[in-house]
Amino acid sequence: MINTPYLLFLGDVPDMLAAKVAIGIRDWRPENAVGQFRLPGCGADLGLADMTLAEARAAGAQTLVIGVANRGGVISKEWKKVLVAALEEGFDLASGLHNLLRDEPDLRAVAEATGRALHDVRVPSLSYPIADGKKRRGKRCLPVGTDCSVGKMYTAMAMERDMIARGLKATFRPTGQTGILITGDGVPLDAVVADFMAGSVEWLTPDNDDDHWDLIEGQGSLFHVSFSGVTMALIHGGQPDALILCHEPTRTHMRGLPDYALPSLEALRDMALPIARVANPACEVVGISVNTQHMSEEAALAYLAKVETEMGLPATDPYRFGAGKLVDALAGL
Amino acid sequence: MINTPYLLFLGDVPDMLAAKVAIGIRDWRPENAVGQFRLPGCGADLGLADMTLAEARAAGAQTLVIGVANRGGVISKEWKKVLVAALEEGFDLASGLHNLLRDEPDLRAVAEATGRALHDVRVPSLSYPIADGKKRRGKRCLPVGTDCSVGKMYTAMAMERDMIARGLKATFRPTGQTGILITGDGVPLDAVVADFMAGSVEWLTPDNDDDHWDLIEGQGSLFHVSFSGVTMALIHGGQPDALILCHEPTRTHMRGLPDYALPSLEALRDMALPIARVANPACEVVGISVNTQHMSEEAALAYLAKVETEMGLPATDPYRFGAGKLVDALAGL
Repeated sequence: MINTPYLLFLGDVPDMLAAKVAIGIRDWRPENAVGQFRLPGCGADLGLADMTLAEARAAGAQTLVIGVANRGGVISKEWKKVLVAALEEGFDLASGLHNLLRDEPDLRAVAEATGRALHDVRVPSLSYPIADGKKRRGKRCLPVGTDCSVGKMYTAMAMERDMIARGLKATFRPTGQTGILITGDGVPLDAVVADFMAGSVEWLTPDNDDDHWDLIEGQGSLFHVSFSGVTMALIHGGQPDALILCHEPTRTHMRGLPDYALPSLEALRDMALPIARVANPACEVVGISVNTQHMSEEAALAYLAKVETEMGLPATDPYRFGAGKLVDALAGL
Repeated sequence: MINTPYLLFLGDVPDMLAAKVAIGIRDWRPENAVGQFRLPGCGADLGLADMTLAEARAAGAQTLVIGVANRGGVISKEWKKVLVAALEEGFDLASGLHNLLRDEPDLRAVAEATGRALHDVRVPSLSYPIADGKKRRGKRCLPVGTDCSVGKMYTAMAMERDMIARGLKATFRPTGQTGILITGDGVPLDAVVADFMAGSVEWLTPDNDDDHWDLIEGQGSLFHVSFSGVTMALIHGGQPDALILCHEPTRTHMRGLPDYALPSLEALRDMALPIARVANPACEVVGISVNTQHMSEEAALAYLAKVETEMGLPATDPYRFGAGKLVDALAGL
């Protein structure tokens, strides 16, 4: 559990593309973002107040979050100076970088001396149990994709936002580094040891009120041979009541696998639903989320209408047109 | 890679049940078993020559394999004395115990001083790649089960033995601790980090002669919610040409999951085959392996005949009645 709110560290990254994590926090948990900290030459700007460490602490910030990807896998001297000063100032540090904060002897020593925490969200911080498959109270919704990186996280977060706006009980449950940094909690599923994957998802989505929905962040794809085992564990550990099919229509092959074509939405439905019903016989496919970012608005709307007819299910791009249809589809469950 | 042949250490275990690994080595790789080493009070006997460490070394033994499970998770003083002496005598040590050899400071120090290896086969010894899904040369056969522990490893090993006896090219590929100790090599798949599971299986079953068969050890079950992600990674990493359905007909619920019934063989076929065809569109279900150990011979034969009729596929208990039918079924592929 990472203490919120955050000061978002952008370092000296050249552009907004490198600031994906910080943008996610600003967009999805603005209440967690007190301000931004930029070094000279930084080409990213979140539109938040630029703050010194002391100003951010005074404004209540608890954790300095490294909201960017660094190239080269080295934490530079310029970054290090700020990170050490932040620890001294009373901040915890949180990072999704491949090179871990805990592997930096100076950061580790200063964190120990000051009693602050170093959160490396790429590695599990807990020993998870082996899944027991017991039916849990409350409801769970899981987006599953025809491919990796088709918008499963955004779908779950957009649905959570819509549900909370309606006064419904809903919690986004992150299963990846970006989601964990955005919310401050979750399971880095792709870094969990095989035997404990499903158990970590059970741990993440515990018993809850009968009318509460977990919106679980999806991972991988049943059709992506590199990561399908992670997707499988997520479905069986999450025991979803509702599946959302996620798709990106302009992709020409599976991400990173040039020899593999994307499956159809029908093929995804026909594979995912029997798998999900092993853990939850009541599971239903309730809607379709299409990532239309590479389509004109006209083309996107035409595509969504066609999918709705063909699949007999509500279809939307929740980021572009809102998640209302998908939330409506949960109502009967 | 563990150096063979072995001296099999049985310690002071009370009975044969505790000697599962040693029995597996004796039964499946007798050429790897130079002799056995027993402490006073040992209730197990493999029927091999009892040897001192020096005698076993003289007979060519390279590695002392702890062929038993220890209860309590502690390596006792009596065991330790033998293990230290074995290192001094020139043996490597290999173990599938939960408590690792490498975590014992004395064993570690003596191994370093003597230049011997400590093989803890429960933990991966390599950094595996992420799977790339590329089609590999050679053929692969994978047993998949209606449940865990229904005889998938024995099926693969019995098929390998039958194929080698016929002069065919075949290699058993272990994916669990017991199989690794039996053969000296393999991947401890349930201990691999999620993102690298499928890649570790690709590594284990590389390009080979066009007429060579890998017989891959199965793990878990697509219907066992605790471990199904491991099974999925094994199917997509192994890209099998042939699946064998494995079943234990007397089991009343999924192993360790009292609320879960076993699926039918039809349900297993209908789920496993589309999944396997994602990685290998030519994959076929070719036969059925039934673990009949809890049935009379008459009941077993009747059950196998019934399954053959219902499924339209050859069915046998490869341990009881031979694996010939299953090997025959590979011929057309």
